[in-house]
Amino acid sequence: MLKIFAARQSVALASVILLEEVEADYELHVLDFSKGEQNLPEYRAVNPKGRVPALATEDGILTETPAILVYIAQRFGSAQMTGAHDPFVFAKIQEFNSYLASTVHVAHAHRFRGARWADAPEALEAMKKKVPETMTQTVGLIESDFFKGPWVLGDAYTVCDPYLFTICSWIESDGVDTSKLPKLQAHHERMLARPATQAAVAKLG
Amino acid sequence: MLKIFAARQSVALASVILLEEVEADYELHVLDFSKGEQNLPEYRAVNPKGRVPALATEDGILTETPAILVYIAQRFGSAQMTGAHDPFVFAKIQEFNSYLASTVHVAHAHRFRGARWADAPEALEAMKKKVPETMTQTVGLIESDFFKGPWVLGDAYTVCDPYLFTICSWIESDGVDTSKLPKLQAHHERMLARPATQAAVAKLG
Repeated sequence: MLKIFAARQSVALASVILLEEVEADYELHVLDFSKGEQNLPEYRAVNPKGRVPALATEDGILTETPAILVYIAQRFGSAQMTGAHDPFVFAKIQEFNSYLASTVHVAHAHRFRGARWADAPEALEAMKKKVPETMTQTVGLIESDFFKGPWVLGDAYTVCDPYLFTICSWIESDGVDTSKLPKLQAHHERMLARPATQAAVAKLG
Repeated sequence: MLKIFAARQSVALASVILLEEVEADYELHVLDFSKGEQNLPEYRAVNPKGRVPALATEDGILTETPAILVYIAQRFGSAQMTGAHDPFVFAKIQEFNSYLASTVHVAHAHRFRGARWADAPEALEAMKKKVPETMTQTVGLIESDFFKGPWVLGDAYTVCDPYLFTICSWIESDGVDTSKLPKLQAHHERMLARPATQAAVAKLG
């Protein structure tokens, strides 16, 4: 059986939503970041990066949200969830998730995790100050250019949807004016109406 | 015919190496970042993010290195290049490239692109100062834990190899002591011995 390592209010929510969506049989292990459980030797043996999510499979451990989402969907989901029927569609789905991982999530992380990239307290403050601007800009580009609707890339629910939902659950507290993002707001409600999302949020929210 | 938009000394090198490796028929368009060509309206119409690489295909534009690499390999390369024969291997390859995109490349970007995440000049200096440490740590984890050899994930050349090569071509000037990374050094030489790498470096190096 799969086992997923997660933490509350982390990006691991996206993978847990997808596990619920495809009705996979899985065990959830919630790490307490406030106690630094991600840095314990037992967890470093699972994931030397000390991050979540990590997915334990029969073949070994998987990390990184874009990789875990594709793995879950390929194993338990429909071909549409990854665009498996068409290399271009598959790549567009990967492109979207890669943007979330390497640009949007990174912009958000400068609010509380600035110590990854600088030591001086003033620098951490300067990073925090810019988060409303960078998050408004990056999710604004999703609203204006990338989001097709009703799901992220059109008519089919894909591995992009739980990932966007998870990141958008942070943006109001990041200082983004969500009233200017009607498509993303409607997507958020659409996701919240799904029992799989509700189940995952209840476990990790 | 495919057309790739790239810039010198950018991560676009990884995609150009792979295009050469699979002997794809493609056109190369080199943007001059020193003239701000990535911000011209003509290029923003191609990629509203104003970044490289971007790959123009018959079906539309693709961006984000992990997505472009998989697309090129799925279309022109062998199944081994993406691990298409096994969802777990496929996911391990995506995991590695996702780590390069969202952690290693991001750490590097704090050296010259700190203005993405803070405005204060002192903050940019503080970010720059920490780059040797963050790059040593992140590529050190590849050396110690993730790299299998002779290629990144073992016996087969995959979409991870041109990407790792590209990022490792920056690390010496990022302040990383490469003499402590014997596996990555040998990988770099192994990559440089391939005609495809040499051709791409000659075009973009």
